[in-house]
Amino acid sequence: MQEPLKTIKETRPLIHHITNWVTIYECANITRAFGALPVMAHAPEECADMTRISSALVLNIGTLTNELIDAMILSAKAANEKKIPVVLDAVGVGATKFRDYMAAKIIDSVNIDIIKGNYSEIAKLAGEKAQTKGVETTSINADPRKIAQELATSKSCIVVMTGKEDIISNGKKIFVVRNGHELMGSIVGTGCMAASVIGSFAAVNPDHFDAAKDALCYFGIAGELAAEVSRGPGSFKVNLYDEAFSLSDENAEKMLNFEEC
Amino acid sequence: MQEPLKTIKETRPLIHHITNWVTIYECANITRAFGALPVMAHAPEECADMTRISSALVLNIGTLTNELIDAMILSAKAANEKKIPVVLDAVGVGATKFRDYMAAKIIDSVNIDIIKGNYSEIAKLAGEKAQTKGVETTSINADPRKIAQELATSKSCIVVMTGKEDIISNGKKIFVVRNGHELMGSIVGTGCMAASVIGSFAAVNPDHFDAAKDALCYFGIAGELAAEVSRGPGSFKVNLYDEAFSLSDENAEKMLNFEEC
Amino acid sequence: MQEPLKTIKETRPLIHHITNWVTIYECANITRAFGALPVMAHAPEECADMTRISSALVLNIGTLTNELIDAMILSAKAANEKKIPVVLDAVGVGATKFRDYMAAKIIDSVNIDIIKGNYSEIAKLAGEKAQTKGVETTSINADPRKIAQELATSKSCIVVMTGKEDIISNGKKIFVVRNGHELMGSIVGTGCMAASVIGSFAAVNPDHFDAAKDALCYFGIAGELAAEVSRGPGSFKVNLYDEAFSLSDENAEKMLNFEEC
Repeated sequence: MQEPLKTIKETRPLIHHITNWVTIYECANITRAFGALPVMAHAPEECADMTRISSALVLNIGTLTNELIDAMILSAKAANEKKIPVVLDAVGVGATKFRDYMAAKIIDSVNIDIIKGNYSEIAKLAGEKAQTKGVETTSINADPRKIAQELATSKSCIVVMTGKEDIISNGKKIFVVRNGHELMGSIVGTGCMAASVIGSFAAVNPDHFDAAKDALCYFGIAGELAAEVSRGPGSFKVNLYDEAFSLSDENAEKMLNFEEC
Repeated sequence: MQEPLKTIKETRPLIHHITNWVTIYECANITRAFGALPVMAHAPEECADMTRISSALVLNIGTLTNELIDAMILSAKAANEKKIPVVLDAVGVGATKFRDYMAAKIIDSVNIDIIKGNYSEIAKLAGEKAQTKGVETTSINADPRKIAQELATSKSCIVVMTGKEDIISNGKKIFVVRNGHELMGSIVGTGCMAASVIGSFAAVNPDHFDAAKDALCYFGIAGELAAEVSRGPGSFKVNLYDEAFSLSDENAEKMLNFEEC
Repeated sequence: MQEPLKTIKETRPLIHHITNWVTIYECANITRAFGALPVMAHAPEECADMTRISSALVLNIGTLTNELIDAMILSAKAANEKKIPVVLDAVGVGATKFRDYMAAKIIDSVNIDIIKGNYSEIAKLAGEKAQTKGVETTSINADPRKIAQELATSKSCIVVMTGKEDIISNGKKIFVVRNGHELMGSIVGTGCMAASVIGSFAAVNPDHFDAAKDALCYFGIAGELAAEVSRGPGSFKVNLYDEAFSLSDENAEKMLNFEEC
């Protein structure tokens, strides 16, 4: 039996984020709640240095600028050299041409190990017609599982597609993760936080397909446990941190809800 | 009977924010708690595009820079073309000359539908002598209702003045809103959040005078309900989100506390 | 008997922050919970003006850029002229050369009244070999008390070194503060918040050595009280704000846990 949480808590991997200014605190805080150590550093003079002492890099284009994208590419190159996992959260792709262009630029410039997005963001990256409503998914015409698989194959990476059911593909196989709770959608930032959790799990598991699945399961389980004792989005967020912090591999094991297709 | 919350929850308007870095998460999160969808995008390359797919634009100069003001003006021009409401939260006007200058620049460059501020911020905008203590109001010499009315007339917009009693003017009439609770002042960000709520209500109600009144009433009611079950600012913020999320038009209707003058 | 909280609540000092984008909200919110007024303003056109109407300046290099450092120096010069206390939180010194360089640049360019950091950050500033893991301390070889004392002497300032035990030195004497709780390390931002609290206490007490000690004691006491009623980091943060807000000088007095060496 693998024990990802135990490994994270024992090794305390440093997770370097270059992320958006809306949910940056929540990303840092959930990273710490699961036992890893967050750091955020985006200055071009130091971002690659910070990546070099880290165990994973999480990129999020939620409030992108040209300067921030440059920093992301600098850091991702350092991560590629050091062979640590790079997670890209393609926030808002499909909402503006600038986001579409910049996400493509990152993916074309460096090796991304795990691309994450909601249904319309991933569909847009996969070349489908899709319109993201700000950072919110809209319904897509194509089969989400097929899209995840195609993008994973064409980009030689893991694709994580979050939504009603979470779909993870390595191009060959698919995990469908059903852990989670609808209250996770009632607060801002759970999508971004998921990328931080994926980065934390991938930092200690070279099988990134497996790590992404574990991360979404564990995060979803914390959400399920939190929902049981919450009366709305305020108390839910509080309880989500408490549950993530208290979760053990043993308890998570009993609640795993995913299937391999 | 109007049902603003029901309308917001059914139409899920996208509320584009260009705001400050202190309370950006809280602005996004309260927007979502009331049922609208927040998005934050400030890069000059995309901000107008994001506005074009939105239903309201909320500007907040709390941590302004030259670049951010340029982005606000770009987005506001797009909002004016699309005829969606623009809310300006004049945070800190009266504290530094830079803020005074930049708020005036925005107001002179584009059409602002709703100008919001605390007593000393609005007084300063109206040409009165006023000194804001950072972002905190100080007592003003002039009659607040008269100031609100004058500024609304001279700028042909709705003016929202928050404080002991909230004053809303369209230049002719005045609403005085008495919903709210003093614990709202014990946490950072309720002022900024109020602007997000006003944007959300104005997105679904072309009568912006009425929308601003509804927004302050509903937000204040959520605050009153939250205060009943809170023991300090930490639990109050949690409960504020829970109550905003759970509020219905029916329950709000019973607690409305405003008068028209 | 001194009554620092009473003084803060009566005078409501304005605490100007130029800080990082991760914990900026928490810094503002804890400042307000203890009764002071936070303001954040980093534009070069206004930052010095904002400092001139403030009672303390808190600098934090957690997400530093060249522009932000320039703003910090501009503001610190204004603070020096006005003779209000300047607190520098040396976040991440020892992690990258850029941080080492920039912290040194600030300290060499202006008068810092209180330098704060964790063990490895302060050790690095003191010229010791030390490697900070992102923003997390690592064990250091040298005696922390000696390092604090040496840095305080060489820079003619107060040095605050946070960790298992908090060490405060004015170069001659040392306070060891034992208030606090391990749950404070379970959330992101308590270190940054401590700097805001120190700034708030130093704003009303010209004896900065004493103010720093009081600030860490009171903040630690709020943490101890919060921990009693919390079940994890989520509820702990909520309770920390509630306890900080409710704390009185009388109650704090009974729980003070420090010694002078």
